[in-house]
Amino acid sequence: MSDHPHDFASDNHSGAHPEVIEAIAAANEGHAPSYGSDPWSDRAAATLRSHFGDDAQPFFVFNGTGANVSCLDALTGPHEAVICTETAHMHTDECGAPERLIGTKLLTVATEHGKLSPDDLSRWESFRGDEHRVQPRVVSITQATELGTVYTPEETAAIAGAAHELGMLLHVDGARLANAAASLDADLGTLTTEAGVDAVSFGGTKNGLVFGEAAIFLRAGLGDGFEFTRKQVGQLASKMRFTAAQFEALMGGELWLTSARHANEMAARLAEAVRGVDGLEIIHPVEANGVFARLPRPAIEKLLAGAPGEHPFYVWDEESDVVRWMCSWDTSESDVDDFAELVSRAVTDAG
Amino acid sequence: MSDHPHDFASDNHSGAHPEVIEAIAAANEGHAPSYGSDPWSDRAAATLRSHFGDDAQPFFVFNGTGANVSCLDALTGPHEAVICTETAHMHTDECGAPERLIGTKLLTVATEHGKLSPDDLSRWESFRGDEHRVQPRVVSITQATELGTVYTPEETAAIAGAAHELGMLLHVDGARLANAAASLDADLGTLTTEAGVDAVSFGGTKNGLVFGEAAIFLRAGLGDGFEFTRKQVGQLASKMRFTAAQFEALMGGELWLTSARHANEMAARLAEAVRGVDGLEIIHPVEANGVFARLPRPAIEKLLAGAPGEHPFYVWDEESDVVRWMCSWDTSESDVDDFAELVSRAVTDAG
Amino acid sequence: MSDHPHDFASDNHSGAHPEVIEAIAAANEGHAPSYGSDPWSDRAAATLRSHFGDDAQPFFVFNGTGANVSCLDALTGPHEAVICTETAHMHTDECGAPERLIGTKLLTVATEHGKLSPDDLSRWESFRGDEHRVQPRVVSITQATELGTVYTPEETAAIAGAAHELGMLLHVDGARLANAAASLDADLGTLTTEAGVDAVSFGGTKNGLVFGEAAIFLRAGLGDGFEFTRKQVGQLASKMRFTAAQFEALMGGELWLTSARHANEMAARLAEAVRGVDGLEIIHPVEANGVFARLPRPAIEKLLAGAPGEHPFYVWDEESDVVRWMCSWDTSESDVDDFAELVSRAVTDAG
Amino acid sequence: MSDHPHDFASDNHSGAHPEVIEAIAAANEGHAPSYGSDPWSDRAAATLRSHFGDDAQPFFVFNGTGANVSCLDALTGPHEAVICTETAHMHTDECGAPERLIGTKLLTVATEHGKLSPDDLSRWESFRGDEHRVQPRVVSITQATELGTVYTPEETAAIAGAAHELGMLLHVDGARLANAAASLDADLGTLTTEAGVDAVSFGGTKNGLVFGEAAIFLRAGLGDGFEFTRKQVGQLASKMRFTAAQFEALMGGELWLTSARHANEMAARLAEAVRGVDGLEIIHPVEANGVFARLPRPAIEKLLAGAPGEHPFYVWDEESDVVRWMCSWDTSESDVDDFAELVSRAVTDAG
Repeated sequence: MSDHPHDFASDNHSGAHPEVIEAIAAANEGHAPSYGSDPWSDRAAATLRSHFGDDAQPFFVFNGTGANVSCLDALTGPHEAVICTETAHMHTDECGAPERLIGTKLLTVATEHGKLSPDDLSRWESFRGDEHRVQPRVVSITQATELGTVYTPEETAAIAGAAHELGMLLHVDGARLANAAASLDADLGTLTTEAGVDAVSFGGTKNGLVFGEAAIFLRAGLGDGFEFTRKQVGQLASKMRFTAAQFEALMGGELWLTSARHANEMAARLAEAVRGVDGLEIIHPVEANGVFARLPRPAIEKLLAGAPGEHPFYVWDEESDVVRWMCSWDTSESDVDDFAELVSRAVTDAG
Repeated sequence: MSDHPHDFASDNHSGAHPEVIEAIAAANEGHAPSYGSDPWSDRAAATLRSHFGDDAQPFFVFNGTGANVSCLDALTGPHEAVICTETAHMHTDECGAPERLIGTKLLTVATEHGKLSPDDLSRWESFRGDEHRVQPRVVSITQATELGTVYTPEETAAIAGAAHELGMLLHVDGARLANAAASLDADLGTLTTEAGVDAVSFGGTKNGLVFGEAAIFLRAGLGDGFEFTRKQVGQLASKMRFTAAQFEALMGGELWLTSARHANEMAARLAEAVRGVDGLEIIHPVEANGVFARLPRPAIEKLLAGAPGEHPFYVWDEESDVVRWMCSWDTSESDVDDFAELVSRAVTDAG
Repeated sequence: MSDHPHDFASDNHSGAHPEVIEAIAAANEGHAPSYGSDPWSDRAAATLRSHFGDDAQPFFVFNGTGANVSCLDALTGPHEAVICTETAHMHTDECGAPERLIGTKLLTVATEHGKLSPDDLSRWESFRGDEHRVQPRVVSITQATELGTVYTPEETAAIAGAAHELGMLLHVDGARLANAAASLDADLGTLTTEAGVDAVSFGGTKNGLVFGEAAIFLRAGLGDGFEFTRKQVGQLASKMRFTAAQFEALMGGELWLTSARHANEMAARLAEAVRGVDGLEIIHPVEANGVFARLPRPAIEKLLAGAPGEHPFYVWDEESDVVRWMCSWDTSESDVDDFAELVSRAVTDAG
Repeated sequence: MSDHPHDFASDNHSGAHPEVIEAIAAANEGHAPSYGSDPWSDRAAATLRSHFGDDAQPFFVFNGTGANVSCLDALTGPHEAVICTETAHMHTDECGAPERLIGTKLLTVATEHGKLSPDDLSRWESFRGDEHRVQPRVVSITQATELGTVYTPEETAAIAGAAHELGMLLHVDGARLANAAASLDADLGTLTTEAGVDAVSFGGTKNGLVFGEAAIFLRAGLGDGFEFTRKQVGQLASKMRFTAAQFEALMGGELWLTSARHANEMAARLAEAVRGVDGLEIIHPVEANGVFARLPRPAIEKLLAGAPGEHPFYVWDEESDVVRWMCSWDTSESDVDDFAELVSRAVTDAG
């Protein structure tokens, strides 16, 4: 077994795709203007426009928190709020960055499988115009969701329609948008621009980059002045060509899609392998690259001690004994099969 | 001439050192825990402690704005202010990030060559304890300065002493700390920890990394809880091993020093070559890797049109016809000689 | 009927108690140091210490949002969060001031009658120390609650104990603390300091002042440096003697108690008068000066058109036809009886 | 001598004008809608429009910091900056509130007598559009200035013209706008709206109110949504009628003007009385209600010990032995004459 075995803790435990590393090396020639005024950035932006539409304004940033915070800053004023789910990454896992950095209040909705519905959007409308209340301006959905489910283009379009009708904009936290596209066998543009989405935090890191996300505005005007926003929130890379080159490698061909599809397939394979195990329950539809399961606490303890890697996986909910297993672009069939076997044995032993 | 000729606009126009690229590629094996709980991060932290002292707490971040903002956030409370020069990068070139992201007011001092003096620190003391006034808590100096000068260890120690006497901490914006160390032929620890510095934003990008800086706290306790700060301000990389591996490559041996020393030597060579040109005046001591010169406006115009690169250099002060020429780890002697020749001719022609 | 009839919309629709107006007039003599260095402020602070204990550090501010925001700013660091109920005023009715002004994230709990329980405090503990999560530092309860209920001293002490055990502080939003004290027939100190409360936003406006609240820190050290906080968040009055004089008038004798007790009694009288009306349901215990009732929508519409005042009362929840009726220090028995009669008739007519 | 003798420390050491106290008492009848939906607020707003023009949108707030911060919040976006003088109250005396509460960076200009000039506005223009730099959006001048000088309508118009030409707005910190109007014998509208000013923080407290300032937007549209801003920054009074009634009393007739004129006359009288004293230098033109003088340090010490009041006046600049003497609406001729005599004797004794 390797010194760095494949675990199921997070799709950011994997490294970068070799083609991405090669792209970084290839970009390392001579001098280039910094901050994005370079040919790699121009080409990468064009590549993203080929996916998201001619009006798309893409801006590269460092990470997902940066993409989300800067997008929301661009789309909201001081007393405008963001509607999202209770399980949204920006609500739970960004250490209060939206509140601290840009002062934005998040209005949250409980959900069954991490998906917002159009009906959720109107619950603050009776306070529209009331100076004592923040005014909802942006709806943010995560695609694929933090719980491994996806929104169909129709579902997204319904939310976009409801948002626009109420004078709101739709933002997609697309840290795993590629996985959603692979899952639905749909273009990125179909999932976003054509479904009425206004802005996307588009993830690269979890899909095989060393680092890099893109804040993409899909309607003319929404991204105006975003250069300042990106700089101010600390997300402007000086040697931007290296971010851009990675996106070119990922998005110029099919690498983004084959990588995401593979991760999804591994999650499906894992779900399939353990679904019948007595005492184990898969609690959310497995539609992307994550599997959420409830299993006996002794089985969890045993697996944490014996499965590969330092952090073989995360306990998602300590109280209800739910674990999360994530698959990545480099998860192999044998990784899955071996792990499923471990799981099966641990659960059976705990029975 | 190459497609990407060497210019003198910024030390971030250069790419990464080939050894750094190799280190990224070498780190790309298997899975690793994210967010810094990986062996590369452990090793890189140990390497930085070997430079900055055993008590040093290093945290890797994405860029210089991130390093500065997160350091200041850790060192100040809400109504505490930061004293810096009028030419400090954090004051002029970070798009108001310190004010916006962490609400910190900067108190500025005019200087001749970009260097603060111990006497500058006491000018707000008559308002110490006055609730109407922000209370100075941090002094931030830039080393090497934005104007290409350096603080000797004795000068730094004098500022640190004055700061501590007034109950303040000393922060160093060390985006070019390596250049200062090379200039002064001094260890990094001598320049910082031993001189009484409390925290450093230590730069890697300008000295040959793809990206990456480190916020380093030099006194026990100052960095406690900084994991939260780094995350909250959007500066936590998930695949941290790739940042750490770069720092290992740069700082594990002498690469950081030879690279910085070379850049400094090229700036000295350039200064030497143009110093005698009639009509050209070098306006700051050339102590690191930048040359600041005043030359006739027609010469500036001619050079901007004819020198190598899209942005051959920056006009630093439009009103006083001052330009900045930066050298990098990859600036060659012939780059310098050719450019000096261009400059000489342009200034002479404008005479 | 007067030009300005008594309504049941809010306890801030009433004016100030005549003794308070007299106190303002009496304080209007000669010059006095500003910002609180005046004899009135000294006396008012001593008066508050006589209620809240010798260690209490009281600071006068303008309004409730100011008291809450400044208290929380003093008690939390940048990545520390506040646990409160979903119905907490600071969460729903301060237009996102805590998030915007001081960057604090609120973690909310759904409740039946607006009261937090000790068990609610531990639900974020599994993320204690996780850099991706804000760290709960303050628990904030409202006393009397926004739903007209009160915490007994024992209930408060249980929450304080649970908070302290988890390393948290307990803050009380006491905009209506006087009403709670009257309801429980308990001293203010018994309800707060002795029950383990760490800080209070103590309300004066709703209990008969022209304006004025106090941020009071109950444990030595917690209020250190608060002078700066109050100034920075815009809550420092220059002619402070006029705020202080009002508090002296209110708190120096029994005016605070008789006023609050009267308001409570009027609410009880109203509840009693309408409780038996068929079709009307009182949905929360009536323990302070507010009555929350569900009644048929046609009855609500009729009352809003025909009851006294421009805004006779507020519909609290549009979806569930719940209204709020607030009583004040100046609500008279005949105000109540007349209104109860109107309500009774409207509900009966709608039946 | 009274228990509360008249000092020269600040125009906020005086109390409120008796007519203002009467107005508060008169407003204390029955119930009124809160937050400004009351007849007093309507009348006071109309009164302010009669001074500032039909398009003026006035909003009452608590204090000067609140007025300034909320105005700037309404007029700037996140990466937009405010140009002001180095001596501007918002820069020196608001404990960093603009930076902390709304994240705004202030760009400062050194001046001789506290007055900005049109030429000062363009010094950041070479960085217009540069993403690394905050973008100046508002120019803020103080009228009368912190140094007791005033801008003529022509001077204001010149600054407004320069600001508008550069795409900026002109804000006036008018904590002492009444004093400027009295000094120049000009209408408030002439000094502001007609001179091209876009927004004003209009002071009431220093001119005889218990408390109260107004944020006034002078061009249609600029104040849209300001209800939310005022609430969010903690400056919305619930019993607004009491603020409004004070403004009615002050601004409905000539009280504002006679009060301010009197304060100015007392400052002129004081300056006149001490101008010839050998060893004393008046360092700024005395155009409003303040006198700034340089006198020997022993004289300062003697006066601080022997002049009336706890804080008889402030040393404005400890290093250069400059003091500030402020006159108020209630400063009497004998207050001035007695104090001038004390000053004269102290300076002569120190000679």
